[in-house]
Amino acid sequence: MARFCIIGERIHFISPVIREAMLARDPGPVIQRAKEQLDAGADYLDVNIGPAESGGEELMKWAVRLLQDEFNNVPLCLDTANSKAIEAGISVYDRSRGKPIVNSADAGERIANIDLAADNDAIVLALCSKAGVPADNDERMLYCQELLERGMERGMDPEDMWFDPLFLVIKGMQEKLPDVLEAIRMLSDMGLKTTGGLSNISNGMPKQIRPIMDSAMIAMAMQSGLTSAIINPCDQRMMETIKSCDVIRGNILYADSYLEV
Amino acid sequence: MARFCIIGERIHFISPVIREAMLARDPGPVIQRAKEQLDAGADYLDVNIGPAESGGEELMKWAVRLLQDEFNNVPLCLDTANSKAIEAGISVYDRSRGKPIVNSADAGERIANIDLAADNDAIVLALCSKAGVPADNDERMLYCQELLERGMERGMDPEDMWFDPLFLVIKGMQEKLPDVLEAIRMLSDMGLKTTGGLSNISNGMPKQIRPIMDSAMIAMAMQSGLTSAIINPCDQRMMETIKSCDVIRGNILYADSYLEV
Repeated sequence: MARFCIIGERIHFISPVIREAMLARDPGPVIQRAKEQLDAGADYLDVNIGPAESGGEELMKWAVRLLQDEFNNVPLCLDTANSKAIEAGISVYDRSRGKPIVNSADAGERIANIDLAADNDAIVLALCSKAGVPADNDERMLYCQELLERGMERGMDPEDMWFDPLFLVIKGMQEKLPDVLEAIRMLSDMGLKTTGGLSNISNGMPKQIRPIMDSAMIAMAMQSGLTSAIINPCDQRMMETIKSCDVIRGNILYADSYLEV
Repeated sequence: MARFCIIGERIHFISPVIREAMLARDPGPVIQRAKEQLDAGADYLDVNIGPAESGGEELMKWAVRLLQDEFNNVPLCLDTANSKAIEAGISVYDRSRGKPIVNSADAGERIANIDLAADNDAIVLALCSKAGVPADNDERMLYCQELLERGMERGMDPEDMWFDPLFLVIKGMQEKLPDVLEAIRMLSDMGLKTTGGLSNISNGMPKQIRPIMDSAMIAMAMQSGLTSAIINPCDQRMMETIKSCDVIRGNILYADSYLEV
């Protein structure tokens, strides 16, 4: 199997530093966050420009050009509720190092983002949800089917649909976590790729605990078949765990230096 | 499900300090190792007295009495190739805090240790092997069946048979690790309990890497259904991971203080 795919989550409009830089079109902070994540081993960078209701197209184009120019056409995950901004980003995107990722579609209001990905030969993150949190895995798998059918009708390769089981927060929904892992296994057994915002599970926990809980979760999720995640690649414990799980699953060959790769 | 069961591995005849103490019947070093492990959260202590071909019965009795007297009848795992020594240990064992564990039986020359456990109402560690490393999971499951039948014929509760899939070493057998995890899952799907010497997987790796690899492995194994392991409870990263996985699997309720429990 292929190595686990790490999508760096730290270029996010919710961060005051990034929001300010994006609004001022100031390259510095965006480039710095990108470099830190790429140095730490990110494969893709998520570019979250917020809801971007006005000016989103121009902002996404700016960010895509900035990052790809600076980092040798680094592959990107285009993240906003504004579909037109995603399309604008793709229009200037260089795919020599990987297709763009559309973040994201779901089985509800955002299902048209599947079409957007299909029309643009992009990868799509497909959330197994419609409105809110799915009640159980029957519901998750129903939405997965709807998303899969929509994509395949439009000629997508299922390889380009990465399903997100929705990583739920332990504080409040602890009893749902086994379902999340089981959903990953069910998707994996269908031969599908999977991803998601894993660190959501530790939301609200004390800061020093989050990397511990997140790395335990990612190992369990990788054993269930998870093929990718949107995470903070600067979390060293998480990255060590991912590399170790890749060794254990035979995705990379063991060498004493494997953590440095 | 029950919390993961941690069997502390550090009272081992292979350690020069322990060997010397055992041969001289010097309580100090044995008690110290026991205390460290119990303070760190061990549920059971493994007591390995080596091959113990001569004097093993008396030595095991000494160790059992010493540890149970000192630590409020701490439950123990009696570990030696000398079956008579295990029986002698059981003869003086107080089971108020848990049955003794016989370490170990296999489907080959040591199958009679199943009978020993059955005759003494003990738990038995049952290795899914006969002579050397099983070639694949068909072989593992065949041995599991043989062991299970032997135990049930003699009236054992399958709950008291803890199956060891054999944790193989990554350096040399990396390609076999997915099988080990799959075997745990197969055993778990049969409703069986599982355990084993997990840290064997990182044998030969640089010292600083071992806790990283071991904790990734234990999380993957717990997701596959592993219910126990023979490990070093003083490995903090391992213990943090086990507790986190117990939270994720719903075996313990999350609280911000869960790592301190």
